[in-house]
Amino acid sequence: MDAQRLKDLLEQVRAGAVTPEDAIERLRRLPFEDLGFATIDHHRAIRAGMPEVIFGQGKTAEEVAGIAASLLERAANVLATRTVEAAYRLLKEKHPEAEFFPRSGALRVWRDRAMKGKGRIVVVTAGTTDLPVAQEAFVTAEIMGNEVDLISDVGVAGIHRLIANLEKLHAARVIVAVAGMEASLATAVGGLVSCPVIGVPTSVGYGSHFHGLASLLSMLNSCASNVSVVNIDNGFGGGYVASLINRV
Amino acid sequence: MDAQRLKDLLEQVRAGAVTPEDAIERLRRLPFEDLGFATIDHHRAIRAGMPEVIFGQGKTAEEVAGIAASLLERAANVLATRTVEAAYRLLKEKHPEAEFFPRSGALRVWRDRAMKGKGRIVVVTAGTTDLPVAQEAFVTAEIMGNEVDLISDVGVAGIHRLIANLEKLHAARVIVAVAGMEASLATAVGGLVSCPVIGVPTSVGYGSHFHGLASLLSMLNSCASNVSVVNIDNGFGGGYVASLINRV
Amino acid sequence: MDAQRLKDLLEQVRAGAVTPEDAIERLRRLPFEDLGFATIDHHRAIRAGMPEVIFGQGKTAEEVAGIAASLLERAANVLATRTVEAAYRLLKEKHPEAEFFPRSGALRVWRDRAMKGKGRIVVVTAGTTDLPVAQEAFVTAEIMGNEVDLISDVGVAGIHRLIANLEKLHAARVIVAVAGMEASLATAVGGLVSCPVIGVPTSVGYGSHFHGLASLLSMLNSCASNVSVVNIDNGFGGGYVASLINRV
Amino acid sequence: MDAQRLKDLLEQVRAGAVTPEDAIERLRRLPFEDLGFATIDHHRAIRAGMPEVIFGQGKTAEEVAGIAASLLERAANVLATRTVEAAYRLLKEKHPEAEFFPRSGALRVWRDRAMKGKGRIVVVTAGTTDLPVAQEAFVTAEIMGNEVDLISDVGVAGIHRLIANLEKLHAARVIVAVAGMEASLATAVGGLVSCPVIGVPTSVGYGSHFHGLASLLSMLNSCASNVSVVNIDNGFGGGYVASLINRV
Amino acid sequence: MDAQRLKDLLEQVRAGAVTPEDAIERLRRLPFEDLGFATIDHHRAIRAGMPEVIFGQGKTAEEVAGIAASLLERAANVLATRTVEAAYRLLKEKHPEAEFFPRSGALRVWRDRAMKGKGRIVVVTAGTTDLPVAQEAFVTAEIMGNEVDLISDVGVAGIHRLIANLEKLHAARVIVAVAGMEASLATAVGGLVSCPVIGVPTSVGYGSHFHGLASLLSMLNSCASNVSVVNIDNGFGGGYVASLINRV
Amino acid sequence: MDAQRLKDLLEQVRAGAVTPEDAIERLRRLPFEDLGFATIDHHRAIRAGMPEVIFGQGKTAEEVAGIAASLLERAANVLATRTVEAAYRLLKEKHPEAEFFPRSGALRVWRDRAMKGKGRIVVVTAGTTDLPVAQEAFVTAEIMGNEVDLISDVGVAGIHRLIANLEKLHAARVIVAVAGMEASLATAVGGLVSCPVIGVPTSVGYGSHFHGLASLLSMLNSCASNVSVVNIDNGFGGGYVASLINRV
Amino acid sequence: MDAQRLKDLLEQVRAGAVTPEDAIERLRRLPFEDLGFATIDHHRAIRAGMPEVIFGQGKTAEEVAGIAASLLERAANVLATRTVEAAYRLLKEKHPEAEFFPRSGALRVWRDRAMKGKGRIVVVTAGTTDLPVAQEAFVTAEIMGNEVDLISDVGVAGIHRLIANLEKLHAARVIVAVAGMEASLATAVGGLVSCPVIGVPTSVGYGSHFHGLASLLSMLNSCASNVSVVNIDNGFGGGYVASLINRV
Amino acid sequence: MDAQRLKDLLEQVRAGAVTPEDAIERLRRLPFEDLGFATIDHHRAIRAGMPEVIFGQGKTAEEVAGIAASLLERAANVLATRTVEAAYRLLKEKHPEAEFFPRSGALRVWRDRAMKGKGRIVVVTAGTTDLPVAQEAFVTAEIMGNEVDLISDVGVAGIHRLIANLEKLHAARVIVAVAGMEASLATAVGGLVSCPVIGVPTSVGYGSHFHGLASLLSMLNSCASNVSVVNIDNGFGGGYVASLINRV
Repeated sequence: MDAQRLKDLLEQVRAGAVTPEDAIERLRRLPFEDLGFATIDHHRAIRAGMPEVIFGQGKTAEEVAGIAASLLERAANVLATRTVEAAYRLLKEKHPEAEFFPRSGALRVWRDRAMKGKGRIVVVTAGTTDLPVAQEAFVTAEIMGNEVDLISDVGVAGIHRLIANLEKLHAARVIVAVAGMEASLATAVGGLVSCPVIGVPTSVGYGSHFHGLASLLSMLNSCASNVSVVNIDNGFGGGYVASLINRV
Repeated sequence: MDAQRLKDLLEQVRAGAVTPEDAIERLRRLPFEDLGFATIDHHRAIRAGMPEVIFGQGKTAEEVAGIAASLLERAANVLATRTVEAAYRLLKEKHPEAEFFPRSGALRVWRDRAMKGKGRIVVVTAGTTDLPVAQEAFVTAEIMGNEVDLISDVGVAGIHRLIANLEKLHAARVIVAVAGMEASLATAVGGLVSCPVIGVPTSVGYGSHFHGLASLLSMLNSCASNVSVVNIDNGFGGGYVASLINRV
Repeated sequence: MDAQRLKDLLEQVRAGAVTPEDAIERLRRLPFEDLGFATIDHHRAIRAGMPEVIFGQGKTAEEVAGIAASLLERAANVLATRTVEAAYRLLKEKHPEAEFFPRSGALRVWRDRAMKGKGRIVVVTAGTTDLPVAQEAFVTAEIMGNEVDLISDVGVAGIHRLIANLEKLHAARVIVAVAGMEASLATAVGGLVSCPVIGVPTSVGYGSHFHGLASLLSMLNSCASNVSVVNIDNGFGGGYVASLINRV
Repeated sequence: MDAQRLKDLLEQVRAGAVTPEDAIERLRRLPFEDLGFATIDHHRAIRAGMPEVIFGQGKTAEEVAGIAASLLERAANVLATRTVEAAYRLLKEKHPEAEFFPRSGALRVWRDRAMKGKGRIVVVTAGTTDLPVAQEAFVTAEIMGNEVDLISDVGVAGIHRLIANLEKLHAARVIVAVAGMEASLATAVGGLVSCPVIGVPTSVGYGSHFHGLASLLSMLNSCASNVSVVNIDNGFGGGYVASLINRV
Repeated sequence: MDAQRLKDLLEQVRAGAVTPEDAIERLRRLPFEDLGFATIDHHRAIRAGMPEVIFGQGKTAEEVAGIAASLLERAANVLATRTVEAAYRLLKEKHPEAEFFPRSGALRVWRDRAMKGKGRIVVVTAGTTDLPVAQEAFVTAEIMGNEVDLISDVGVAGIHRLIANLEKLHAARVIVAVAGMEASLATAVGGLVSCPVIGVPTSVGYGSHFHGLASLLSMLNSCASNVSVVNIDNGFGGGYVASLINRV
Repeated sequence: MDAQRLKDLLEQVRAGAVTPEDAIERLRRLPFEDLGFATIDHHRAIRAGMPEVIFGQGKTAEEVAGIAASLLERAANVLATRTVEAAYRLLKEKHPEAEFFPRSGALRVWRDRAMKGKGRIVVVTAGTTDLPVAQEAFVTAEIMGNEVDLISDVGVAGIHRLIANLEKLHAARVIVAVAGMEASLATAVGGLVSCPVIGVPTSVGYGSHFHGLASLLSMLNSCASNVSVVNIDNGFGGGYVASLINRV
Repeated sequence: MDAQRLKDLLEQVRAGAVTPEDAIERLRRLPFEDLGFATIDHHRAIRAGMPEVIFGQGKTAEEVAGIAASLLERAANVLATRTVEAAYRLLKEKHPEAEFFPRSGALRVWRDRAMKGKGRIVVVTAGTTDLPVAQEAFVTAEIMGNEVDLISDVGVAGIHRLIANLEKLHAARVIVAVAGMEASLATAVGGLVSCPVIGVPTSVGYGSHFHGLASLLSMLNSCASNVSVVNIDNGFGGGYVASLINRV
Repeated sequence: MDAQRLKDLLEQVRAGAVTPEDAIERLRRLPFEDLGFATIDHHRAIRAGMPEVIFGQGKTAEEVAGIAASLLERAANVLATRTVEAAYRLLKEKHPEAEFFPRSGALRVWRDRAMKGKGRIVVVTAGTTDLPVAQEAFVTAEIMGNEVDLISDVGVAGIHRLIANLEKLHAARVIVAVAGMEASLATAVGGLVSCPVIGVPTSVGYGSHFHGLASLLSMLNSCASNVSVVNIDNGFGGGYVASLINRV
């Protein structure tokens, strides 16, 4: 049913040729897709305050900078992941407030810094080699309006370091645990706290690690029931889910 | 927007308080899901002549027979896959025209035998051990309104048997190739004909066959470009896709 | 350092032979594990209101019923997963309020029904075959003090059924999406809402499904950023994580 | 048996030294391969109108251009896949009508533009990153004589965009669904239409995507029965099978 | 072209109505498959002396005994693999010379005991648990007309036992090495001899053996260049290939 | 060269018919395997005190009891793994000192209880479901002459329980860590001690645990450098290696 | 025991100070490895006529040329696999008879061209992309003293090309079948001949080919019983095993 | 409880306001982590004599040299693994005693050469291609204070070379077996000795070796019970575990 037919129907209603009841019946039989205007993204409103996100992998510096600049015309905050410094330098010319995070390749313009989260998010990581992924989670959580703490280099093979940070962990409303190797950090953290823990397995490992598979399986099989998992090296996903939890 | 609000709007149109143009604008902003009646399954009509299908695996004989009987009140044809003879005996009491195919566990009530397909479908299989899956494809293709030929026991390790059936293969409008082991039948058939070939890998094999993985990978990597593939042992899927192709 | 040594130290403090400053220094050098009383599970308090949980798999009906009865002496609520009806019958003799859920094998004594969750949890599932896992998630979320809705049989292959439930989905504070086969339900739901979605892949599938691997990979690779994942068939884990999110 | 021996036999028949019956017996015992002329590719005739295809991967620009030029002496249409722009520039010198598609690396000389397909083919893709594979499918389907539509960037995580294209999808006689990540597009499309859908999983994804495995398994396990699958990133295969279906 | 048409053609040759040259031309255009008699299995003759083989797995005792009895009407020797004692008892009623080998489930009627092999075959196995597969290889090699030695229980973890059998190994013209676990027997034997070694990996192992995968990969990666491999547990295949090598 | 020929040679040396130099030359050309007496298992002596071991899996109760009885005629200690109670009852008739361990199916006659180990072995396990494997390790280590402690039910998800056992762990000369699920126990223990830790992954887990693969990969990728690993569920291997380390 | 001690013993025998019986006893207690002369590689003699082989992968051009030159001082024939043209140029300075095969990177000095094989070896390959591996097999088989035929570009998707070469295939005493993609060539060839077939799977393929896994599994699961398999891309191994078979 | 509160408590004890018994009770209820001083790494003392280790992979030459120089201010011995010669040259300027091992990329400053091990460690390797990993094990074991022997190039395919080194093997207190390909060396060595063997699988292999998986599975499934395994290519881990065993 195109707009014309709908208009015709309404004209008939106005003219009294069709009763409202009959008009409803006729509308009821129309497949919605023919209406040409009914949309389902009204929940976009709920997303208010979310940054616009550019997945930088596979895009040139020029593309990333261009898209970012374009988005910034209508969005307060923009985050680009896995991009290169050249994109940052291009964007900075126009947006001097742009920030670049070399470890993770995150590029950020964070203008609306209103806090949305109700509590603190802690990003905890086992080794310095996991820092790029942890940083991506950190930067994501921040731009989504959260207070974020980063605890790095606390591995299960050195439990005392983990315990030394117990207070910070207990203060979290949600935790992102980033770990490669055998990834037991997620389980250890999960056992120490009672809040939700988002596990981000990383591809950091050797030999039978199989590019993150070992860490992924370890987290999925965690005997701590409060752990759920996102994809390997998906720091963005970890920070994003944590932010949603923190604002519900 | 509930029906009341829609009715109110239409009343206003009738009363002249709202112009049809304005009503359209207001409707345009409504999320369709609130209309409560717009549906997208009008293409169900296109599906006319399709049988109702019951996936029997994991259902008791009583459940299968009960669902089948219920469906038969409004549908001409019903197919149940992977069920047991007990379901057949139960159904036959009420529907003596029911057929049971012990190899595949297919149960069928085929009342509307109008032909829908424009050509012949050939189901070809390499070994007798693949017959259960081939039979499921055959029975499915038949009840969907096709003339179907079954060529069994033609393996690539005995090419002459395949060649002996070349005429039948060339007469097909679409072919379903069912094969386990190294599954080269799909490639060999694909190279002999120029019509579409649906490969159905089976779990028939030993040791490094890994429950059908070897056959599946073989078919996906076929050097015959006219082969597409459905899931392991999915005779129903093979017959179903072939039937759709034959009726387009 | 055993209790005696600690007492001696404190006696010396009382006697003025050791200053409090020195006592602190001595204590500081003691490894905590020798203190014999310092524990880290004070966060158990936070867990107040959590049910006691028995993983029933691999335990006999007698064992499950026995453990449950024992726990009920000090705990208000007890949940046993993956057990059998016999365990239920045994427990019911003493605890007539026990409930049994045959699909999932969940056994529950739910006496303290105070609500802990701040919003609604929705458990959504694609097919009836996924119901056992969905029920486990449902029962878990309920006993942890949540209002829970169950939407079953809404698959991506029939999007209109999903859309018909949009209102319920939007009303959720957190959603548990239970799906086997290609598990695209998690992605479809994730795209329709902006709250956290916990994906529970199930082992429901055939052939190349590889006992849940296909569903698991699908969910981990979801292009909806609000999806995190628990282990295959882990309905308990899905309900547990959702409950934690709902009470933070 | 060489031609001479056959001729000798026939001479004997002519001379009456051998009866036709005996000649048949003698011929009957001859292995066909010795006849030197019986061929099985008479179905080549059916292939009339098919383009000649060069798989460019692993071939130098010079090789691709050379083979293409040679084929063009006798063939109206030539398609080279996965080649480089240098091959295009070489070929264009002699064949200025050559076209190059940089995203997919497809090189095409399309002189005989007669339509062979009976309906429209739609190539639908979830994300811009899948465009190279989608373009390969598109270019292939076109040169095989089809009207082709390309719908890009409609993901299941944004169902409304898919629904907005419902009319185009319903107009298709066969659909090629190209998708990476969790590849639920194939299932969603399959559920919206009743024509055959060819799924082309792509290697677009991260971490546990395992270079396309996640997408492949998702499509093979689709709960939409009208989906069959070709190899990962095999845009050519998807376009080829769709073309065959459209001309049967 | 059916026989009648061929006969008509030859009649015309006899009658002088068609010249031999023209007849050749007409024959030349016929696809061989229409001739109805040209076959490619003339090499069956080479197979003289091969036993008829029945793959017993998945067949009932009655089926195996029935097929065997039927084959014995025209074949001297029949071998059935992986069958049960009941099949043996049924067959023995009619063929008292039947032999049954309980470990492997091989059933054999070996009437023509002429030796075809030019040298000795040695079947060597690492552990008693591999004996069922080794026995299948042994029985197969014997019925194909070979002198066969069986060396059992010589593992690489006890090299001296292997060395103690060096003379027997050196006397072999071809060796079948049957091994589970880490399957290093194939490599050790391969390094001690200079004849071809057929590796048969078995599914004997635990945990990370993955049903024979570990043994299979070990044999495929052997640093002894004279080792080739057949499928997991495929004792028949090992014995068969060894027999072919021994008779070339 | 049999003993006779060697004796003949030496007789000739005695008789002066062959010089020692020539005798050496003749011996030098003999392949050692013909000497019939040079053996390499003189290190068997080192193995003194080792029990005889029967791998019970796949053997009947009668076989296990028979072998055990036979071994006990010359060996002080016999251990049978993975057998059934019936074997125990049979053996006990003759050897009342036999012990049976129902969880693991270990059967033991331990007569020579001399201690061989230089320190204590600790077997530590995460959950009660891992007890069968832990018990196999325990029983093995004991019969090999070691003082063994068993610490059960200390998981990483409850670190305080692990820490509560720190003293016992520090007292160990070698530790066997038995763990299923995500198996982070091995890493946690490895980080707490400085002695060697033998990891025994178990097949205890669900879904993506893949029958022990998750635990195995976790242990192999442990960031604690003192962990080495044996096969999944291989409690015997863990106890055996630990015993060797404890006696070196 | 060094030679001196042995000589002393024999001197004592000669002197009558030790009886032959006692000498035997003393020898009997000596571990063979101390004898310093008993070797097990006397079967090296059997290897007469084998070329010396250098695995070039991972070695520099200088290393390969140097090793080759050194070996050529005592060996008639030398083969280096997977090396580069620079190695060839270096070696040619001193050995102008050196040959280089660019596709496969094989480098050969073939001076003793005596034939060792008893029949012909045929190397058959499906596509031009498999030629590097096929060439390695060809060059290996030649230098080991065999008449070798190469049949290239005969795929199962074009069976007539395979059949056109039937005569050559039937003339072979052993066949090496080199194939990537779905590798059904090995099965097709295996079904056409009755001699041993060595399958060499190649890593030629896309997407779900997984670097040769698809071809490997296909060959291992071949329904032609005369096929055994070597490692992926192992042309050398295929040629080597075929040569051994041809000379037994 | 911060230090102030603890001090207050002790002041009260001194003042007699709180009895030692009550103070103990209060302390008993304090979670240890609030004490701010209790640590668990007192076992560091046991680690005396261990070198400091830098994992060089992923670190720049400058970083490695810088960290090493810093560690050398307080540590006698420093080992950096998988680094480059540039790091060595930088470090040598300040520490001329630095050593670099180009095959493995190990960089070592070994000043305290006191022996800690009680016996000899033997590192044994099958092929020259495994030398990088073997060297890493060797260098690690040396700097941890052990006498180490390296036996290289003894493969199972040439057992006599292994046997020629039997004396050295028997002299070892612990053995590190480094092997790629089918890795049967670990099993062969394990069968020849009775001391613990640490298997280090390497990624040396082709095709179906899958980057070390074949070697890993082979070692895990070894039928020699004295073999335990570390990660693929983990020479450091092998040397480290061996050193721990040698010093217990």
